[in-house]
Amino acid sequence: MKRNVEDTQQRLRAAASAEFAARGVDGTTVTRIAARAGINKERLYAYFGDKDALFDEVLTEALEELSRAVAPDGLRFEDLGEFAGRTFDYYGQHPELARLLQWEGLRGAPPVNATTRTEHYERKIAAAAQAQRDGVIDDQIEAGHLMFMIIGLAAWWFSVPQLATMMSGSIAEAPGEQAKRRAFVVEAAQRLAGARPER
Amino acid sequence: MKRNVEDTQQRLRAAASAEFAARGVDGTTVTRIAARAGINKERLYAYFGDKDALFDEVLTEALEELSRAVAPDGLRFEDLGEFAGRTFDYYGQHPELARLLQWEGLRGAPPVNATTRTEHYERKIAAAAQAQRDGVIDDQIEAGHLMFMIIGLAAWWFSVPQLATMMSGSIAEAPGEQAKRRAFVVEAAQRLAGARPER
Repeated sequence: MKRNVEDTQQRLRAAASAEFAARGVDGTTVTRIAARAGINKERLYAYFGDKDALFDEVLTEALEELSRAVAPDGLRFEDLGEFAGRTFDYYGQHPELARLLQWEGLRGAPPVNATTRTEHYERKIAAAAQAQRDGVIDDQIEAGHLMFMIIGLAAWWFSVPQLATMMSGSIAEAPGEQAKRRAFVVEAAQRLAGARPER
Repeated sequence: MKRNVEDTQQRLRAAASAEFAARGVDGTTVTRIAARAGINKERLYAYFGDKDALFDEVLTEALEELSRAVAPDGLRFEDLGEFAGRTFDYYGQHPELARLLQWEGLRGAPPVNATTRTEHYERKIAAAAQAQRDGVIDDQIEAGHLMFMIIGLAAWWFSVPQLATMMSGSIAEAPGEQAKRRAFVVEAAQRLAGARPER
C-alpha cells in the first residue's frame, strides 16, 4: 500500500515537472497535471495541496537532486571551479531545471517553502565562509554573493540560450563549444573565488 | 503625418513591451496589445508584421537602450567593472528588460532578427578582443564568453530574484544590500576579465 502511494506521488511529481517546465505555474492546471499522470486530481490535492505548493515541491526536489549529483560528499572549496563545471554539466543534461527556475523568477512571488530552501543555502554559505576563514578561497567577497554567482556562472547559459548562441556560437553547430563553455565556467569560478586548487 | 505614424508606433511598442514583459509572447495576443495602445490592430500588423516580429523588435530596442545608457561613448575595458555595475543598475531600474530576456529564453526559438543582434554583439566582442591584445584585460578567456558573462553578472540577480533573496537577503528588508550586490558585480567583472583599472 505504501509502495502504491509513493509510486503515485512520483508519477504526479514527474508529470508536474514536465508541465511546469513547459508552461510555468500560470500556464498549466492541476487538471492537466493529473491527466498527464493518469491520476485523479483529488489525490493530487490530498498529497500536495494546491498548484503553487506542488510547483515549489517540484523545484525544490530538482534542486536537491542537482545538489546530490554535483557534490555528493559535500562541497570542497579547493575544487570550486570543478563544482561550477559539474553544475554546468547538470544544467545541460536537465533542461527542465533552468526552466523551472526561470518560471519561479517570472512569477515573482516568494516560494511557499522559502524557509526550508533558505536554510539549505545558509548551510552552503556557512561552509563557504569557513573556507574563507581557512584561507582556501579569498575572503574579499561576501560568501552569499559568491555562492549565488557560482550558480549563475553555470546556469546563465541555459537561461538565455539564444543570447549564448549569438555571443559565442551555436553548440549545435560548433564542435567543442560546449566543452569550451564548461572550461570557461571552471576558470571563471576559480577567478571569482580566488580559489587555490590543489595540484 | 510622419509625426503621427511615429507616435502610433511608439504607443504600440510601449504597449507591447508591457504586455510581453508581463505575460510573454505566448501569453498575450496582438488584439490585447493593440487594445492596450488604443490603436487598431490592423495598423500593428502593417507596422510590425506578426507578434513574434514585434516581440523581437521590442526586446532589441530595450537592449539598445541599455547599451546607450550604460556605455554612451563606447565601452572602456579599463572600466569593465564599472560597466558591469552600471548594467546592474540599469536592470534594477528597468525590470521589464530581464523579464523580456527570460521570455525569449523560455520560448527557445531563435529571434527573427538574430543576424542584426549577432552583429551588434560581434562588434562588442571584437572590441574586447582588441582590449585583450592591448593588454588592458587579460587574454586567457575567450572574448565572447567573457562578454556574455559580464551581462550575466549584472542580470542574474533580476532573473532569479527569489534565489537572490534566499542567498543574500532581501533588498527590501536589508538596507544597503543593493549597493553591496552592485559592489560585488563590479569586483566580479574585474576579476573575471583580469582588468587593470586606471587609478
